[in-house]
Amino acid sequence: MNPILKNAIKQDIKAVDETLSKLIKPESKLSFDVYKQVVESGKRLRPLLVLYSANALGFQKTNDALILGSIIELIHTASLLHDDIIDDAQFRRGRKAANTVFGVKPAVLGGDYLYSLAFNMVLDFDIDIAKVISKAAYMLAEGEIKEIENAFNVYVTQEDYYDVIYKKTATLLEASSVCGALLADKKYKEQFEEYGKNLGFAFQIKDDCLDYRADFKMLGKDMGIDLKEGKITMPVLYAVNEDESLRNEIDLYFKQKDDKLLIWLIETIRKKGLEPSMEKAREFAKKAKDAISFLEDGKYKKYLMAVADYAIEREK
Amino acid sequence: MNPILKNAIKQDIKAVDETLSKLIKPESKLSFDVYKQVVESGKRLRPLLVLYSANALGFQKTNDALILGSIIELIHTASLLHDDIIDDAQFRRGRKAANTVFGVKPAVLGGDYLYSLAFNMVLDFDIDIAKVISKAAYMLAEGEIKEIENAFNVYVTQEDYYDVIYKKTATLLEASSVCGALLADKKYKEQFEEYGKNLGFAFQIKDDCLDYRADFKMLGKDMGIDLKEGKITMPVLYAVNEDESLRNEIDLYFKQKDDKLLIWLIETIRKKGLEPSMEKAREFAKKAKDAISFLEDGKYKKYLMAVADYAIEREK
Repeated sequence: MNPILKNAIKQDIKAVDETLSKLIKPESKLSFDVYKQVVESGKRLRPLLVLYSANALGFQKTNDALILGSIIELIHTASLLHDDIIDDAQFRRGRKAANTVFGVKPAVLGGDYLYSLAFNMVLDFDIDIAKVISKAAYMLAEGEIKEIENAFNVYVTQEDYYDVIYKKTATLLEASSVCGALLADKKYKEQFEEYGKNLGFAFQIKDDCLDYRADFKMLGKDMGIDLKEGKITMPVLYAVNEDESLRNEIDLYFKQKDDKLLIWLIETIRKKGLEPSMEKAREFAKKAKDAISFLEDGKYKKYLMAVADYAIEREK
Repeated sequence: MNPILKNAIKQDIKAVDETLSKLIKPESKLSFDVYKQVVESGKRLRPLLVLYSANALGFQKTNDALILGSIIELIHTASLLHDDIIDDAQFRRGRKAANTVFGVKPAVLGGDYLYSLAFNMVLDFDIDIAKVISKAAYMLAEGEIKEIENAFNVYVTQEDYYDVIYKKTATLLEASSVCGALLADKKYKEQFEEYGKNLGFAFQIKDDCLDYRADFKMLGKDMGIDLKEGKITMPVLYAVNEDESLRNEIDLYFKQKDDKLLIWLIETIRKKGLEPSMEKAREFAKKAKDAISFLEDGKYKKYLMAVADYAIEREK
């Protein structure tokens, strides 16, 4: 990302963080600590999407966009808190997961607190905005359930995979850009739906590729963690597609949890599945950019394009 | 409760259950099982409050009241699922708790699913109704956090106690009767607020008394469970009020977890704290009834009065 753009985004993240810290009342030290553990290391992707989508359509009330973006960030944070419990995650974005630091109970409570705070605040906005956000939260819960039900099943299909990543990731990114559009001008809802959804697919597929990145010193700890958790992601699906016999090997790993087999599988998936997956991610990023190409050239259009590039170029 | 009344209520509970089963899509077997484990043994107090409050003000669209009542029941069920995780509960209403049967993860997920389903559906109602319900859900989360923060603290005051039981219990009963009133006729909001809130206090104080009931065969398993969990409830507060030295004994129990001391404490709290607590519960039930005494005599007024009596007379 070019330095001028990067700096501008940094300023906006600062504004988001100031808004967030005003919304969260640190009445309860425990839930505040839990929240901080997760939220501080975030990318603020969703609030920035609300802000830039609204601004790109000429919306002037920046503070409203910041508040709405922060509400979505609260829902995102709540879902991460609960996801980490479900996944028994030890780490989150390179930091210890909240359930590891504070225990499962504060993580359950902290998530409930953030969800309910978000639902309260969103009712001050237009009912259509509230509906988009509450539907996204419902999808998040459904996606997490589907993911658990699909775990350790080597017969998961691309269709199953897309269903889960739509619900778990794309839906909240879609909601973010749609809410930006709804703040500014409802008639562009569909274009921003298309932008956010495709951005979400690109983002998640890249994420699933990063899980297989060639970082040997992290081996066994940070890499191939999806496979360890029984998650069949895009690189696996492409690798199995190329070599059907891999399915049995993966099934064997799920049953025996043999570390040597895991390392061999990671190598094989990396060789056979990464490139076609990244190609797919690039396709989705392009679709996202195409959806908003109708916008007049300007700063915020550039930011939104940059976010789509970032989704597939990032290394963490 | 007289048999005719009891039978009428039974019919209404059946109607609530039919509505609930239409709302919950058993797409995911796991979350459906989790939901059933908790919801099936419930009293349906909240849906009945919505229904009878609305009906008492002449509301005719019974189906709307049933749906709104079911939405509140979903929130209640979600909060129970998460509460049981927080409390490490083994049992819920005499059945095994969902976290015990299915594990913590499905209970977290199941709760999130029910919460988000409820928030989605409530947006089809008036925005004032959505605000009342989402505020109540926020209070529930806050109440659970406060309760944890107060646990094992012998200096918890009556004020702290009322704050927690308002947030954890009274607020959702209040929301139920208020929502019934909002469906029917907004100008009676305050009276139904007063009814629901006082009913909630009566209900929870009775609940806290039942924890000290003289059922020796359950001793150690089902009785004094609040004290074991470090919860200072009304009977404890009254007992300590009468005999200040009890505070040190309780503190000693919190530190040493000595079973003999627990039995002695339960006996003492029962002797010194139960009667004044029940007196207080009766006061609140009376206040609840007074708040709706303005209603013209009729079937639904009688039901609402009966619910207030039931709150303090029930034995489980």
